[in-house]
Amino acid sequence: MSHRGFEKGSDTGLFTEVSHRTKRNINPDGSFNIVRKGEIFSEDGIFHQLVNMPIFSFLSLIFGFYFGINLLFSFGYYLLGPSAFQGVGNHQGWDFFWDVYFFGLQTITTVGYGSVAPTDHWASALAGIEALSGILTFALATGLLYGRFSKPRAKFLFSEKAIIGKYQQNDAFMVKIANGRKNVLTDLEASVIIKFSTKEKKYYRQQFHVLKLELQKINFMPLNWTLVHVITEQSPLYQKTKEDLAQMDAEIMVYIKGFDDSYHQMIQAKTSYVCGEIVHHASFVPSYRTDEDGNVIFYPDRISEIEIHDEE
Amino acid sequence: MSHRGFEKGSDTGLFTEVSHRTKRNINPDGSFNIVRKGEIFSEDGIFHQLVNMPIFSFLSLIFGFYFGINLLFSFGYYLLGPSAFQGVGNHQGWDFFWDVYFFGLQTITTVGYGSVAPTDHWASALAGIEALSGILTFALATGLLYGRFSKPRAKFLFSEKAIIGKYQQNDAFMVKIANGRKNVLTDLEASVIIKFSTKEKKYYRQQFHVLKLELQKINFMPLNWTLVHVITEQSPLYQKTKEDLAQMDAEIMVYIKGFDDSYHQMIQAKTSYVCGEIVHHASFVPSYRTDEDGNVIFYPDRISEIEIHDEE
Amino acid sequence: MSHRGFEKGSDTGLFTEVSHRTKRNINPDGSFNIVRKGEIFSEDGIFHQLVNMPIFSFLSLIFGFYFGINLLFSFGYYLLGPSAFQGVGNHQGWDFFWDVYFFGLQTITTVGYGSVAPTDHWASALAGIEALSGILTFALATGLLYGRFSKPRAKFLFSEKAIIGKYQQNDAFMVKIANGRKNVLTDLEASVIIKFSTKEKKYYRQQFHVLKLELQKINFMPLNWTLVHVITEQSPLYQKTKEDLAQMDAEIMVYIKGFDDSYHQMIQAKTSYVCGEIVHHASFVPSYRTDEDGNVIFYPDRISEIEIHDEE
Amino acid sequence: MSHRGFEKGSDTGLFTEVSHRTKRNINPDGSFNIVRKGEIFSEDGIFHQLVNMPIFSFLSLIFGFYFGINLLFSFGYYLLGPSAFQGVGNHQGWDFFWDVYFFGLQTITTVGYGSVAPTDHWASALAGIEALSGILTFALATGLLYGRFSKPRAKFLFSEKAIIGKYQQNDAFMVKIANGRKNVLTDLEASVIIKFSTKEKKYYRQQFHVLKLELQKINFMPLNWTLVHVITEQSPLYQKTKEDLAQMDAEIMVYIKGFDDSYHQMIQAKTSYVCGEIVHHASFVPSYRTDEDGNVIFYPDRISEIEIHDEE
Repeated sequence: MSHRGFEKGSDTGLFTEVSHRTKRNINPDGSFNIVRKGEIFSEDGIFHQLVNMPIFSFLSLIFGFYFGINLLFSFGYYLLGPSAFQGVGNHQGWDFFWDVYFFGLQTITTVGYGSVAPTDHWASALAGIEALSGILTFALATGLLYGRFSKPRAKFLFSEKAIIGKYQQNDAFMVKIANGRKNVLTDLEASVIIKFSTKEKKYYRQQFHVLKLELQKINFMPLNWTLVHVITEQSPLYQKTKEDLAQMDAEIMVYIKGFDDSYHQMIQAKTSYVCGEIVHHASFVPSYRTDEDGNVIFYPDRISEIEIHDEE
Repeated sequence: MSHRGFEKGSDTGLFTEVSHRTKRNINPDGSFNIVRKGEIFSEDGIFHQLVNMPIFSFLSLIFGFYFGINLLFSFGYYLLGPSAFQGVGNHQGWDFFWDVYFFGLQTITTVGYGSVAPTDHWASALAGIEALSGILTFALATGLLYGRFSKPRAKFLFSEKAIIGKYQQNDAFMVKIANGRKNVLTDLEASVIIKFSTKEKKYYRQQFHVLKLELQKINFMPLNWTLVHVITEQSPLYQKTKEDLAQMDAEIMVYIKGFDDSYHQMIQAKTSYVCGEIVHHASFVPSYRTDEDGNVIFYPDRISEIEIHDEE
Repeated sequence: MSHRGFEKGSDTGLFTEVSHRTKRNINPDGSFNIVRKGEIFSEDGIFHQLVNMPIFSFLSLIFGFYFGINLLFSFGYYLLGPSAFQGVGNHQGWDFFWDVYFFGLQTITTVGYGSVAPTDHWASALAGIEALSGILTFALATGLLYGRFSKPRAKFLFSEKAIIGKYQQNDAFMVKIANGRKNVLTDLEASVIIKFSTKEKKYYRQQFHVLKLELQKINFMPLNWTLVHVITEQSPLYQKTKEDLAQMDAEIMVYIKGFDDSYHQMIQAKTSYVCGEIVHHASFVPSYRTDEDGNVIFYPDRISEIEIHDEE
Repeated sequence: MSHRGFEKGSDTGLFTEVSHRTKRNINPDGSFNIVRKGEIFSEDGIFHQLVNMPIFSFLSLIFGFYFGINLLFSFGYYLLGPSAFQGVGNHQGWDFFWDVYFFGLQTITTVGYGSVAPTDHWASALAGIEALSGILTFALATGLLYGRFSKPRAKFLFSEKAIIGKYQQNDAFMVKIANGRKNVLTDLEASVIIKFSTKEKKYYRQQFHVLKLELQKINFMPLNWTLVHVITEQSPLYQKTKEDLAQMDAEIMVYIKGFDDSYHQMIQAKTSYVCGEIVHHASFVPSYRTDEDGNVIFYPDRISEIEIHDEE
């Protein structure tokens, strides 16, 4: 591959040549290890952020927003003066301010006791606008709150380590997956990709290969699912030692998706395993047991348990 | 398969070795026969539970929640005393408590008659918080109520028994499926998996095989759909007698999914048949008839009717 | 196929034997021609019905529901008598009834003017329940209203007639499809199935065959899409004359689905063509034209225009 | 293809013959270049329009709608006269009109201060209807507002130009795609179709061919994705010069879809490249770099940068 265009760093989507050794592509928590710069669109993420921020921050924001918005309207009412309202008696200054502040709060929430009420046209119109503003912004606040509450909470669990161990007559690369929730997941599909990085002259070439799985789809996953890539002669892992993988900066990325039957939505997760997270000559310990009554007892928090075998 | 790693109970996802004979994997109602323990995440299921609990319990919970929350706010109002409110006259004790309790109820529902109204700043602020709390929590209550009402009610019906009977020149394993609702279901897809369990030394080995179907997908299912697995030489059921199936603890799991055109969502169902639920030398009786006007009359509640033939 | 089990009317899902000639399976409007009896589940369809009834009936139902529910609460208020309310003066009988009826209406809508307000505990509690009931039932009413408004309106248009005509060197069965809305539809997929019915002794045997399409999937459909089934030797339509199709009660069922990008949902439609609706020796007239500026002008209401050729 | 039926302009869905050279099918922004006429259905698009109009216009419409609707109800109240209301004192004419106008506004928003309140039955009934109308129409307004806010904002970026350049040993047609948002997109799938137009006697024949991609699906796209169509002998682009493409009115249409994990919805985009937008003897410049800490820094706004090589 001595073509000049490529040497300067071509970008074909299938492999890439970069000037430095890079960190892992995908962090164990599934996030990408990439810094985006020069964003053209900046308004995105507001909705996403509001849906994902901690509930306490979210509620503080909502309450803060309404007390703040109401403050703006209160200034308007204050400027119109006590003569624009009934029920404020002969209040002046702060007393009158608090009267209209709470009047505003009763308006934006559409409670409207009427103990203080606008008599002036301008005060009435402003109150009408505040009520409409309240209804419209509450649509967003309550929609978000319900969206947060009803969003799929399905969570895939990945084994902390991947293993390379005996599988029938061959060696195999294996990762264990389980459903962290009680939701029933159906139509599961997994795919595993390996990234190698090789130093060539001044560049590091990154190559991606799909690791073929013994079983790529399953209908449902009541227990765990062990993804098995048998290391045949065709496998990019064939005759690669632990040291080979380390030297090549191997990163094995695992992607899984499934259908969450409680929420009627597709969900997905991803993670990756780098060299230190791939254990050789190991096997997974079963994470469920059967008892004498024929029950199957599953321990989803034990899917990472492995057993290391003597090298043969 | 005498490899030592496996004998100690390896877990490959393709087959498993367990220490006891187990109950069926899937119950006739489609639930899994598995006990989950040591859950890491406990907060899941609240939404799911609220959506699926009986409507009477759900409404009681909602009403109870509002009367309860309002009680908390009422304590606050009560502590502020009668001087913080107008419209309570010279009420004291219980009389005043009920005044503020109903005032609170009028506030949380944003009705706000104003016959009782806060005059004090603290009472006004507390009422503002109650009104906001009402709006936000009603978002959850009404969202859930609508979610319950609008959730897909499509229901697959499976024949009570599966049969093994003549199909053209061969024997076939057959299950009958119908749509229990009037919703139109499209893009249906079925899959059938058999589980065998064989005793080996101290372990029971469970093996899973896919049973190939004559037709795996159909576009729509106005009547019933009989899933047909022809028992050829390649079938795991080939030359298995009733006794063989019983001894091997055979369990045949059926999974079906389809698109519900009324709710624009994917729906799925599963069930399984164990030995006592598989009838040999039988055929399904048609569950619809035609009349002289050319009408097709379908009886979805008759899909389980079978006819047993003399053994030949 | 002389096996006895089948002669008595077996039901295999692949073909069926019925006692009478039947009407078409699918009506031109896409509904199934099937009568369901002995339904086990009767509560389904309420949501579906409310979403699909005419808007005028729907609004009448909503208004009727609230005026009716409020009537029930009014009886309660009426029984508590004028002493339980302030603002009713010394009204009695009908005057008092109307006072509490409109008070109830102000409560269920959470308007709560307070010109009439409960003073008694029981009246206050009943009003609280009415307000809660209002909020909860309005959740259903407004959810349904919005659901009606926001539901996908995408509509597939099918040509009124199917044709059998020349396509390149062969004859082909063709149906023309278009999008009746301006929504962009993507990922379209079609399938065509033919049903034959043949009289055998006392039964009519119905057989279903898939008609292979020249193109089964397209990415988008800005204009129309002509589904083309080339009649090769493998086709069930090979060398079938118009009379053959009539005698065999042929019905050709067309199913199409696609993704509506405006509503982010899958939509589907189906129709069928029986003998009188299949025109031989015909071709479809283009339903768009180009003008001198290079514009393409599409007439979706002209997709049914065909041209009949002299028999050769 | 000298069959007479076709010469008159047959329409098979696979290729078409039109009377004029046409503009491009798809504009760079992804919209179709097609004029629809003779629409049968005209009511569609209202929802779509409301969801997509600028937020300022949308809010103006909402406020205008409520001030307008309330005007209608105000006329009704005005006709009932001052005696039908309490709290209007002895106002007449405009004074009374404004009283009932603001009373109406307080009713439609369900604020209901009660400083003005209906005493007459007809005024009460009209106010009840206004409150109900308010609740129902606010369902649409707030639903739309939330729908606008929560709709998927994922945006695919396409490189401004497509290129034809060296790819390994061959030439290839390449387009670069990136995600314009921070949302994680998964399960991406692309397809590329070329349209040729050839003049034949009086007609222009348009032909469509699928361009086979090196990689048609990817699991996720953290950086960019370069779609690569290698120009082998089977490719419709084989040995086509820039001039050939220009003469044949070539238009290369690119369609991409993926799953937006933030919104749990499928999203799609399309664009096309005509001759002036396809650069020969070029390659894409990488749009990300690595730094010494191993970070990958991605510049989504640089995906259109290309490098032109000397012709060889």
